[in-house]
Amino acid sequence: MTSNTPGRHRIQRHKERGHYDPETIHAILDQGKICHVGFHLEGQPFVIPMAYARQGNALILHGAPNSRLLRQLAGGMPACVTVTHLDGLVLARSTFHHSLNFRSVVAFGTARPVLSLEEKQAALVALTEHLAPGRTALARAATDQEAQATQVVRFEIEEASAKIRSGPPLDNPKDVPLDVWAGVVPIHSIEAEPIPAPDLKPELRTCQPGPTAAVKAPVP
Amino acid sequence: MTSNTPGRHRIQRHKERGHYDPETIHAILDQGKICHVGFHLEGQPFVIPMAYARQGNALILHGAPNSRLLRQLAGGMPACVTVTHLDGLVLARSTFHHSLNFRSVVAFGTARPVLSLEEKQAALVALTEHLAPGRTALARAATDQEAQATQVVRFEIEEASAKIRSGPPLDNPKDVPLDVWAGVVPIHSIEAEPIPAPDLKPELRTCQPGPTAAVKAPVP
Repeated sequence: MTSNTPGRHRIQRHKERGHYDPETIHAILDQGKICHVGFHLEGQPFVIPMAYARQGNALILHGAPNSRLLRQLAGGMPACVTVTHLDGLVLARSTFHHSLNFRSVVAFGTARPVLSLEEKQAALVALTEHLAPGRTALARAATDQEAQATQVVRFEIEEASAKIRSGPPLDNPKDVPLDVWAGVVPIHSIEAEPIPAPDLKPELRTCQPGPTAAVKAPVP
Repeated sequence: MTSNTPGRHRIQRHKERGHYDPETIHAILDQGKICHVGFHLEGQPFVIPMAYARQGNALILHGAPNSRLLRQLAGGMPACVTVTHLDGLVLARSTFHHSLNFRSVVAFGTARPVLSLEEKQAALVALTEHLAPGRTALARAATDQEAQATQVVRFEIEEASAKIRSGPPLDNPKDVPLDVWAGVVPIHSIEAEPIPAPDLKPELRTCQPGPTAAVKAPVP
């Protein structure tokens, strides 16, 4: 990752929670389904939730051909893409030390349009596999016409940082003797029982949706 | 909600998924724990995950007194705060129609610093209650010194929109006969068994952390 705005990605608060290695950053990105894309348009910041997939050190975003957001992004304006996992509620003896356990990545970079049909098809496969791993082997692939009717944008990460808070509350020592329960309530994102589409063929109702492995338990 | 940048909050894509009533918007905000705060600094957009609480039509944010982000925000720059819930993976017969079920709110406005001690204490209570409902009755309240050592910012929502996708996949009619399972894999955010702090007094280990009711099941 190169640096063209020195320091914009450096963690300012709780520096001990900052991580800059690609392994940590990629693991957090790979576990999310929705990113928050920030950009600036006519003096107004926008933060838009979008599905995404990681390809190397880039994030693939997509949408309709007439999406204003994607069109602007693909024009190369500076952008920021953030992915956050909530892992737990940190309950301290004092309200002051209540906190959240989380993992987040804040990535800075610029986007370019994906125009070639081949690259676009590969990007659409990556998006589906990120959403639901294994599904591209089961579902009908996008036709060239469908791919052409999709605007795909490749956001190249120039700089990124991860921030992680984990573990128990950090109470003031003088509060530890208080008769107040303290600890962490872990939060997990889980997949519930699949709901078949109303028009699913009856003989497919007992099938499974495939190896989605879509949502993994967070790091404890 | 007044409008000073007409249309910035209007849903551009899938207009049928847009909602502008405060009930829908507040319900989505009240169910989240983390928001994504977008702002612009020296030509660079930033998107930062933060805890929050809603007070009427405002969102309370907080941090350390020397937080650059909060200091800038409190200066009244335009900002955008987004809250998103992922509710399900939408698996269609075609990869093209795969999607996500979600509920999101994109809110535009400006922030001001909360300076009075009384308003700050009320804001800190709101933050703790939003994080873990019921905890302020159990945990030690913030001292005035702790409140003064916290920077609190009140983000007034000027305009906001909610966007909701729910329900089954919408396949192309010619794909419905395909032998591919289609439907929704619901995603729930759940609280797991609380983990007591390592230094919790032994006689409190069997206690419960209190009525956090922190994470509710998403709308089906």
